[in-house]
This record gives sequence, C-alpha cells and structure tokens, in this order.
Amino acid sequence: MKDYNYKTIEKITNAIFLALGCDQTDAEIITQHLLLSDIRGIKTHGVLRLKEYYDLCKIQRINTQPNIQLIHETPSTGLLDADKSFGMISGRKAMKLAINKAEKAGTGWVAVRNSNHFGIAGAYAMMALPHDMIGICMTNANPLVAPTNSLNPLLGTNPIALAIPSKTYPPFVADFATAPTSRGKLDILSLDGKEAPENLLQDMDGKPTTEAGILKKGGSIKTLGGDYERGGHKGFCMSAWVDIFSAVLSGANFGPTVVPTLNYLDEQKSAKKNMGIGHFFGAMRIDAFQTKEEFLTQMDNWIEKISQSKPINPTSPIIIPGTPERIEEEHHRKNGTIPLSEQAAKNLFNIAEELL
Amino acid sequence: MKDYNYKTIEKITNAIFLALGCDQTDAEIITQHLLLSDIRGIKTHGVLRLKEYYDLCKIQRINTQPNIQLIHETPSTGLLDADKSFGMISGRKAMKLAINKAEKAGTGWVAVRNSNHFGIAGAYAMMALPHDMIGICMTNANPLVAPTNSLNPLLGTNPIALAIPSKTYPPFVADFATAPTSRGKLDILSLDGKEAPENLLQDMDGKPTTEAGILKKGGSIKTLGGDYERGGHKGFCMSAWVDIFSAVLSGANFGPTVVPTLNYLDEQKSAKKNMGIGHFFGAMRIDAFQTKEEFLTQMDNWIEKISQSKPINPTSPIIIPGTPERIEEEHHRKNGTIPLSEQAAKNLFNIAEELL
Repeated sequence: MKDYNYKTIEKITNAIFLALGCDQTDAEIITQHLLLSDIRGIKTHGVLRLKEYYDLCKIQRINTQPNIQLIHETPSTGLLDADKSFGMISGRKAMKLAINKAEKAGTGWVAVRNSNHFGIAGAYAMMALPHDMIGICMTNANPLVAPTNSLNPLLGTNPIALAIPSKTYPPFVADFATAPTSRGKLDILSLDGKEAPENLLQDMDGKPTTEAGILKKGGSIKTLGGDYERGGHKGFCMSAWVDIFSAVLSGANFGPTVVPTLNYLDEQKSAKKNMGIGHFFGAMRIDAFQTKEEFLTQMDNWIEKISQSKPINPTSPIIIPGTPERIEEEHHRKNGTIPLSEQAAKNLFNIAEELL
Repeated sequence: MKDYNYKTIEKITNAIFLALGCDQTDAEIITQHLLLSDIRGIKTHGVLRLKEYYDLCKIQRINTQPNIQLIHETPSTGLLDADKSFGMISGRKAMKLAINKAEKAGTGWVAVRNSNHFGIAGAYAMMALPHDMIGICMTNANPLVAPTNSLNPLLGTNPIALAIPSKTYPPFVADFATAPTSRGKLDILSLDGKEAPENLLQDMDGKPTTEAGILKKGGSIKTLGGDYERGGHKGFCMSAWVDIFSAVLSGANFGPTVVPTLNYLDEQKSAKKNMGIGHFFGAMRIDAFQTKEEFLTQMDNWIEKISQSKPINPTSPIIIPGTPERIEEEHHRKNGTIPLSEQAAKNLFNIAEELL
C-alpha cells in the first residue's frame, strides 16, 4: 500500500469515467464512491475495481448513459429499473428516494433491478445519517457461496450495511458481507501463498479445504457459521434474505442466475435473461418510534455500554462497527491522501494511459 | 419425547393462563402460540416455557391484565408500550398493526417496549403471509452472547424471523437465532453429559471451551461465525442489529441492561429501570415493488432453483428454511397430537395441579 495525493487520483478517476461516457455529475458520484472505499480502508471495493468496470463498459454490460426509471411506488416503497447503470448511480438515486419516502411516511424502502456492482454498501446506508434516519442497504452479487448442503456456489457474499445515528459518539456503521469472508480477501491470501482459515471453504466435491484459490477451481465459500453444527444454516438464512430482498422483490437476477462478472464462473452465463443484479435500500426516521432525543440518548448509552465493557484482552477492546473505517477516513481526509495497492495504482494508470 | 392429545394439552394450557389472570381471548392467543412451537418441533419455545412464565407472573414481571398503548405512529410505523404483557399479546397486536399500516403505506414497522418473552418469532412473521405480505420479526433477550473481544455476555441470542410468500411451493419461513446456538440446545447437551461443538463457547475468562453448561458459570455463547478470522464480527453486527431495532428504537432495556429471567445472570439485575425487552415487527406488501404475480413467480423460481440444486450428499438436500417445521406441523395437525418432552409434560401437570 502507498499513499497518493487524493486530488490527483480523484482527477484521474473522474476523467476515466468521463471518457467511458458518463456525464459530469455521474462521473463525480462514482469517483467519490470508489475513493471513499479506499480512504475507509476497504481496498477491495475502491480503485482496484476500475479494471472490472472498464471491461464491463467495453462489452456494454454497464450503460454509462442510463435512463433509470421508477417502475412502481407506494407511500413507503419504490422500484427502480437501473437500465444497466453503474450501481453507484442507481444506488444513490434509490437511497435518496427511500429518504424522501421516509420524510413523509416514516420509512422508505426501494428495490432496484437491472443494476451493476455498487461499491461499498456502507456509503448508501450512511446517506441517511444527516437526515436523522437509520440507513439500510443490501445487494446480491456473483454466486460464490454454497448454502448448507449445496455442492455448488449459489448465492453471493451479499453484504448488508446498517448506519444508525447517535448523539455524542460517532454513529454505528456496520457494513459486512453475510458470508464469512470475501473473494477479495481470498485473492490476497492466494497471491501471498497463504492458506485460508479452516471451516470457511469447500472444494468442487464439497469437501472442506483451506486452499485460498479454491473459488477458481469450482469451490465455494461456506455460509457464515460454517458447518450446520456451528449455525451455518443461519448464515444461509442471512444470505438468502439479502438475495430475496435484492433480487426477488425487484425482479433482478437472483442467486445462481446472476450473470457473473468473474470468468471462472463462466458456466453460469447461461441465464436466460439478464436483469442485472439487484439492491435494496431502506431509510427509517428515528423519530418514527420514540422521539429523536430519546432515541439518540439511548443509542449513545448503547454505544457506551458495549464499547466500555470488559474485553478478554485489554489491548483488544470491543469495537463498535464502523470505528476502524472512520479512523482511517479521518486520517486520509486530514492528510489529503488515498492509500492504493500496487495493483490498484497500476490498473488506474494503465486505464488512464489507454483512455485519456 | 411423547405424543399427547393436542386438545387435552390445549385445554390444560388454556386453563392455566386463565388461572394466571388472563382473559379468555388472551389465554387462547398465548396457548395457540405456545402449542404451535411444539407441533413445529421447536421444543425450547413451547410448553416447556410455562414454568418460567408462571414464575414471572407470580412476581408480577408479567402483567396478565395489560393496558397496551400506542405511543406514537406515522403512516408506516408505530411504537407500542406492552405494559409488561406476555410477549404473545403485544407481539400479535404489533404485527397486526404492521400489517394494517402496510395495507395503506406499502410497508408497516412496529417497535414494542416493556414486553416479555414472545415465544417463536416465526409465528408473527407468518401472520403476514395470508395478506400477500412479507413478515419480519426480531426480539432481544437475556444477555448470553459475547460480542467479538468481549469477556462477558452482553447481547441476547436475538432471533430474526422472515416469512416470504410463494405461489405453488410452501412459503420460505426462516426463524433463526443470530447466535450459533441457543441456551435451550446447550441445556439439553449439558443434561445428556455431552460437549458442545468447538468455536461456539467461551468460559468466564474468555477462553474457548466445549463445556455445554458454561453459561451457568459466567461463560458466553460466541457470535455467529465464532472467531474474528471466521467472520464472528459479522455475527456481532447481526446480534447488535436485532438488539438496536428491538430495544433502542422502542426504548426497552437493551443488551447488557436486559433484566434477566435466568437466575445465573443475577448480577445483572442491577439495571436502573426495567422497560422490559423489546421486539420489532415488519410487514411489506409484495406488490409494493413488482406486481404480486411477478413476485410470486420469481419466488417460486427461487425456491425451485435453490432446493433442486445439487447437494454434496444425495441424502441431504438443500433445505428451504421452514421445511422441517412445516412437515412436523402437518404431521401433528393431521393426527391431533403434540410432542412434549418428559420435562415439559411434568411442568405442565405440576402447574395444573397447583393452579386448577
């Protein structure tokens, strides 16, 4: 990892999205979203993804001039067809709609279909915070996770993000895959020649393995919890939940029918119809239940009580979700820097050379 | 386990709730809810709980003549104060309100405070199904789960239930603790002199253990996933989510401040104020996004594709959540039977002798 000047990387990234056909507003939205991931330390969802996005634009799986449409709505819900846009464009639009619905109805819930990868889920959930709302976000993804008993990967690592306002403490911001690990983390282990932890992976015959590169050989990530006796079926319920809310509510391609963006999942490109991946967004006014003041005070108490509880090891305190990412972001914002891996920087500069 | 005549157990249970001071309608609601758990094979949440409920009624922690009040509402939300009712009474009322809200606003979300144990979460979520709605339900509970890095148990096993309608297949009904195992299951292992699986439990010093009775000695259940390297922090996010939605939104006692119903958690009875435990209910009209027909067809496709995917072992297919419970329920409904453990039957008859 190396720190680069934020403004430089921002200008280059923005210029790339313009060159790919996005208009100025969209290019800025996508750039900010990607760079936020890197400065929050989530290197798997930042600039590193540019190569994949570039390739998907070239084969027109991503539409840089989308006509995103509101298909249906009720006072508290909406359905968007993303017209194969970058997920960041449909995602921001959907989350704004959810927030607008919540202003009037107390809560707002928006499903999106026909979309693409949308970067870090946490960024959408966090959009709710300045409105004194709880933000929720889910998405489905490439099938890499095998449900309990399944030989093959059928569901994505399907993240959930949840952002909850508080009063004097920083907000609670959880942004987590419902699978125990991610493709990105496994790729890094594999590159470093390391093994994955036990009980996370299975090979193409469904046998347990610690081979980090197993996804490329027909293997799967197990559900959160791992084996049945350790609650892996609960992890399956979580993964299924995200898939159904993201793709069945919206009409996107679900689980095993997601048209993959990974060449080693080629065999599944046989899905009859590509309605993209799906997302699900929610916004809940905190004063839709207790008063705002009561909620914020109680949330502060929650954060205080949990974070100040006794740790097993005094050097490893209990971490309120979102804390490490916030500290990382504050550091880079203060210094005007962005950390990029060698691979991410190389991809960025190669694409810039090709396009600019 | 032994099969009893359903009608007999129903009459006795109903009479007990009447004797405890419930009116006829409430006694019937609680009885049906409890018995449903047993006939669905969830023996930890059925008649076995009567003893605990009886004890809580005696010390007036459960109010059998509650005045449940709607504290606040918006078009899509509501907050109920349960007035220390049986959780089944406030829970049914809250879920009905969520369904009514959803009829008009597309979705409905109701938080409940000042409540008690509400039996199986799945029963509330399933109330949405005949209305062509998705049902959601969560509750917090006695602190038995240690967040990642925590020495002590701070959060409950905090279940989530999710019921999703389908067209020709039986519905998807997930009802799962966000912790990898439950107190009930550990009690059974402990009684049988068996060890718990590895990576599920920690002792009072935070050290890994397989001793099934460890909760009674200051130990904790780990979060779903177990250690950090196996995604245990994601399990923490899930447990926290349920606790915050159930108790912070509503103003109930959260996580470590829940006044326990277990004598071995005595030390925590020091909570300043007892606002009971909290629940959170949701109902979403399936036609609030796609049309009803599109949703149901897609959900059928989802169930078909997942359940018919290749299993690792041909004798262990991929199970759609809710399937074993539904088969068990159908069996007992057909035969007019209810399965009770020796302990559950003994408790029931003892309480009947005392009260009737």
